[in-house]
Amino acid sequence: MTDLQDAMANTAAAVTRQLDSLLPRVAGPRGRVVDAMRYACLGGGKRMRPFLVVATARLFDVRDPRALRVAAAVEMVHCYSLVHDDLPAMDDSELRRGQPTVHKQYDTPTAILAGDGLLTEAFAVLAHPDTHSDPGVRAELTAGLAQAAGSNGMVGGQMIDISRERNDLDLDGVSELQSLKTGALIDYACQAGAILGGASRDAREALRAYAADLGLAFQVADDLLDAEGDAAQLGKPTGRDAEAEKATFLSLLGRKKARAKADSLTSSAMRHLEMFGEKADLLRQMARFVVERES
Amino acid sequence: MTDLQDAMANTAAAVTRQLDSLLPRVAGPRGRVVDAMRYACLGGGKRMRPFLVVATARLFDVRDPRALRVAAAVEMVHCYSLVHDDLPAMDDSELRRGQPTVHKQYDTPTAILAGDGLLTEAFAVLAHPDTHSDPGVRAELTAGLAQAAGSNGMVGGQMIDISRERNDLDLDGVSELQSLKTGALIDYACQAGAILGGASRDAREALRAYAADLGLAFQVADDLLDAEGDAAQLGKPTGRDAEAEKATFLSLLGRKKARAKADSLTSSAMRHLEMFGEKADLLRQMARFVVERES
Repeated sequence: MTDLQDAMANTAAAVTRQLDSLLPRVAGPRGRVVDAMRYACLGGGKRMRPFLVVATARLFDVRDPRALRVAAAVEMVHCYSLVHDDLPAMDDSELRRGQPTVHKQYDTPTAILAGDGLLTEAFAVLAHPDTHSDPGVRAELTAGLAQAAGSNGMVGGQMIDISRERNDLDLDGVSELQSLKTGALIDYACQAGAILGGASRDAREALRAYAADLGLAFQVADDLLDAEGDAAQLGKPTGRDAEAEKATFLSLLGRKKARAKADSLTSSAMRHLEMFGEKADLLRQMARFVVERES
Repeated sequence: MTDLQDAMANTAAAVTRQLDSLLPRVAGPRGRVVDAMRYACLGGGKRMRPFLVVATARLFDVRDPRALRVAAAVEMVHCYSLVHDDLPAMDDSELRRGQPTVHKQYDTPTAILAGDGLLTEAFAVLAHPDTHSDPGVRAELTAGLAQAAGSNGMVGGQMIDISRERNDLDLDGVSELQSLKTGALIDYACQAGAILGGASRDAREALRAYAADLGLAFQVADDLLDAEGDAAQLGKPTGRDAEAEKATFLSLLGRKKARAKADSLTSSAMRHLEMFGEKADLLRQMARFVVERES
């Protein structure tokens, strides 16, 4: 196992424990939505966004336990977006991480509510005094997550992704879609560590630039995986972009240029980390990981 | 026009202007979800919850402009819940306030996203420095709204409302459903004014007790309106509770006892306002209004 794999596995286990304790089961008919919320976010995944929160927080000597509540909130928002994106009226996906999606395991109304519940709970976690003693930090964390998740972020990106114009997007359009739908939360995950650590403006700008390259590299690699990856390893069907005739980095650039773009974004992401020295080694490895991963 | 009607109309107009400016249109395919969010919350309604925010804030000499951002955030959450409750997979409603529901006017995926966007935007508004200069106030406002909206509040209430057990609820069950699905946000609306105004613990307790009676009275009246009201005036079909064989305050208590319960809750709500003297007159009128309204 590489250092990164080791660190990611540790953070994934810690954030899963955190999510488990933040979402206690309740009795009665209301318990069903809590069970579905737990199902949506305790079932594994790479926990890349939580890892980014923890790893950037470490740059500013913020200890992991303090970062983990924020990491869990970010993961709740990520998981809510998957639950709603998977709905029959949206992407109509039956499998996620090799398991039935929430609406297959429960039903569609429960999945809608579970998504709503996770999105809401993320803000409850951030605003709670346990997250940070300084309410200014809590308010900034909340405002940033709302910005990343809303119509200027993930919701806006998903709207583009299901729009009639979707298949005819050019490279700028696909880039905008990516920066909203997946880039905004990756950016926030990196900023959250900096907010927790009271980072300088320079450090925040560097992390913003790192996150932009990382997020874009992640998406280019995702497009390549959809075309070339192994469905069993990915835990979901492949070839869906081409089947739906979606404009993607792959369809617009071709395989060779898309791969080169991913590699060049990786190098660029790493260069933005110079000011942090060795402390940022895991974040550098992450930039390579997102383009070399097989799932 | 009574003082209350006049005050409610003024607040409704002001909160609509506030919502309009908080949700600016955007160009491109992403604009569709913003249009749907605007459609969902600019189309009128009594704006009862925003009025409660403004009216309780006045008890503590908080000026209306300061309360209106919070009032708009509360209305966004109310409207998001209507959009998601109306979805085909939920209540499958075609009309709301006499107009097509969001999924009828747009489509189901856009309605899901518009609800998600409104819920998220509410937190963005509360956490923004323009809402209050003290970040401690902003964090408390955020935490309270998340609590009211999540699985311990509205989401939990809606889960019960669509559960298999729904039609067999007893009086305690119907009361719990009400306190989560509609009571929690009414409670929050009254607390928000107190949070903005730095109210004493006693004042907050009094408003909590007022809101509990008011919310319950509102629901009992709602059950009566569904059975006895005028569909044209309500802007939605009537008789749906009985048709669906739902347990309601009306079905469990009968018409006479339900009406008496509503009246006794009104009196009780008013009594909780004693410490505020004349300043609370509009809130007293509100307690009468919720049981005497015809829509």
